[in-house]
Amino acid sequence: MSVTAAKGFTAAGIAAGIKAPLANGSGGNPDLALVVNNGPRLAAAGVFTSNRVKAAPVVWSEQVLKGGRVSAVILNSGGANACTGPLGFQDTHATAEKVAEVLDGHSAGEVAVASTGLIGIRLPMDKLLPGVEQAAAELSEHGGEKAAIAIKTTDSVHKTSQVTVGVPPAAAGGTPTRPEAGGGWTVGGMAKGAGMLAPGLATMLVVLTTDADLPAADLDTALRAATRTTFDRVDSDGCMSTNDTVLLLASGASGVVPEAAVFAEAVRTVCDDLARQLIGDAEGASKDIRIEVVGAASEDDAVEVGRSIARNNLLKCAIHGEDPNWGRVLSAIGTTSAVFEPDQLNVAINDVWVCKNGSVGEDRDLVDMRYREVRITADLAAGTESAVIWANDLTADYVHENSAYSS
Amino acid sequence: MSVTAAKGFTAAGIAAGIKAPLANGSGGNPDLALVVNNGPRLAAAGVFTSNRVKAAPVVWSEQVLKGGRVSAVILNSGGANACTGPLGFQDTHATAEKVAEVLDGHSAGEVAVASTGLIGIRLPMDKLLPGVEQAAAELSEHGGEKAAIAIKTTDSVHKTSQVTVGVPPAAAGGTPTRPEAGGGWTVGGMAKGAGMLAPGLATMLVVLTTDADLPAADLDTALRAATRTTFDRVDSDGCMSTNDTVLLLASGASGVVPEAAVFAEAVRTVCDDLARQLIGDAEGASKDIRIEVVGAASEDDAVEVGRSIARNNLLKCAIHGEDPNWGRVLSAIGTTSAVFEPDQLNVAINDVWVCKNGSVGEDRDLVDMRYREVRITADLAAGTESAVIWANDLTADYVHENSAYSS
Repeated sequence: MSVTAAKGFTAAGIAAGIKAPLANGSGGNPDLALVVNNGPRLAAAGVFTSNRVKAAPVVWSEQVLKGGRVSAVILNSGGANACTGPLGFQDTHATAEKVAEVLDGHSAGEVAVASTGLIGIRLPMDKLLPGVEQAAAELSEHGGEKAAIAIKTTDSVHKTSQVTVGVPPAAAGGTPTRPEAGGGWTVGGMAKGAGMLAPGLATMLVVLTTDADLPAADLDTALRAATRTTFDRVDSDGCMSTNDTVLLLASGASGVVPEAAVFAEAVRTVCDDLARQLIGDAEGASKDIRIEVVGAASEDDAVEVGRSIARNNLLKCAIHGEDPNWGRVLSAIGTTSAVFEPDQLNVAINDVWVCKNGSVGEDRDLVDMRYREVRITADLAAGTESAVIWANDLTADYVHENSAYSS
Repeated sequence: MSVTAAKGFTAAGIAAGIKAPLANGSGGNPDLALVVNNGPRLAAAGVFTSNRVKAAPVVWSEQVLKGGRVSAVILNSGGANACTGPLGFQDTHATAEKVAEVLDGHSAGEVAVASTGLIGIRLPMDKLLPGVEQAAAELSEHGGEKAAIAIKTTDSVHKTSQVTVGVPPAAAGGTPTRPEAGGGWTVGGMAKGAGMLAPGLATMLVVLTTDADLPAADLDTALRAATRTTFDRVDSDGCMSTNDTVLLLASGASGVVPEAAVFAEAVRTVCDDLARQLIGDAEGASKDIRIEVVGAASEDDAVEVGRSIARNNLLKCAIHGEDPNWGRVLSAIGTTSAVFEPDQLNVAINDVWVCKNGSVGEDRDLVDMRYREVRITADLAAGTESAVIWANDLTADYVHENSAYSS
């Protein structure tokens, strides 16, 4: 699992002291992760937040990724290094230089940096830089889980995923995390994120690795196609972060050049799994809401309607209260520019068509909403396109967590 | 005050039994209001929800207003008559016919109808129609307050406002609600709304009346100009209703034809006062947030940025927690297409410039957020345009009220 599932990668996760020490004085939680691509290939692609207010590490890493080569990724939790001005950018630069210095033969220009945590606070470089040395000393082919743990902020669990292709069943069953058999290749990854999830990416840091032997352009194509229908369609609370980063690194260590479609599907599967884990761990949420818009005239219409439903606070409260309030679905649809006629709209909640032709449908008392997953189906009756958006309910716990975050 | 402040109007508010009876069996709360224009003029203008899923009374009243004449408005709480199909529209039609029948010389085609309450439920016409008779019997020049009370849903208070122009000071002081002195004219009004407030109008019903002597076209110009910068810039929770209705009726009973600019300002003042009352009574809110965007390249930019800030759930939670979290303001600004440079943005919270040039500014501990009104100033440093948007914080009470609304 995680970023060391694919051959050619080592990783580490340590407590550098960026997060506050624990109450018993025994040092803080893990807060610094290092992922190293040991090659032979150093190809990479990245997708970043579309927020125009970008954190320093995003500005830095976007530049690094233009070269299509990444030898290492350093990630910290405990501070976003966003809205920290020129000095914050210098901190990111110094971090990359430190990684290059402690890893023989690396160049800072090929070191990606990612940060997550509070906005508007400088990172404690006196703790972060020594942490880089410690992380480098602890690099391991089994370090993927520790790296995934070190990037957590308010996440309740760490998130990893893996797909392995082309390994004989016996080998795959026997060695699930490290396919050594000929012909096999793997896409693995880790993610952090537990709120502030929104289109154009969630507040999330994601590092994917593969031992497939592909150039940067092919990685870029597969990654963009995958994020478009996975991370980009996760909308926990409509808020977009300054730090979102998704990286895909290829080592080529399997020696296999997969078909483009097969590789794309593997990347999409890992992204989809991680995106689903993000929704499942969203701050304060008690429900995961799967919104499927069908019968749309275009995919854009389906996505617009799905997002409008996903962001309707009144509906999110109703779902929290296990109230199949389809009127709020209709009023959310009504704010969009999608093609539809109001008197032809149909809405199902957990497969009960509570709204038919824009009016009362099946008995709402038939809807069973006791379980965490709630499925809303909105039929626009205007075409054959569809899209799925994932969202969360709105709860008092969400308010509590986010009203006390920085104070 | 209210809709009977201007000469030429009578009103009533009664309990027709549309709302559930009280626990002691003594009948329900007031739920039916009637406002009648006794002329001599019957000019009117209206602004309605921009939601494409419109309640039956909105569809009806939009048609009525095309004629520019309204002799009476019948309003009910206890049911929105939205998403009720063709039968729901018949109910609205029957209500207007009943009003015309019980008021001598009225035509159903000049009777506007407005409803508010739950979506997707038919109105109890066996109670509503007899209620129309009762309301007509109770019409009074002093009925404005009762009418304002009858349109409440989750409102904690009823909302009215009044501006009187051109009355000698002594007369104005002595008779604030009914200017009889020569040359005086009045704009008065009532509003309901306590949540679901959003651009393109709040879930609100508003009836404004004036005894100024103006034709429908002049009323329309003044009303659209007023709503654009008042009700349209109230954004309690980002949700847009299916039932929003704002009507302005002129009786001409003062015999005064005011200057266009003076009349427009009077209408704007009443709308602004009512809009501010809506925000102050929003469901579950503990803070009223005044978001002023300055230094914008255009008014559209200022409004787009203001709305983005107003709708950021994470920021709304932070304000609830009295946390001057300017990073969330910046990340909300960053999602817009407005003209700005991230490293030139400035943000003040309650006049303390906690963010300067996109980075840390004055000490956030200087911000005092104990009071209900919180002022956020966002300076885009890109021009000279500005706009003000009003919003509310996001609270556990909001979640509680809206997760149990229909169940």
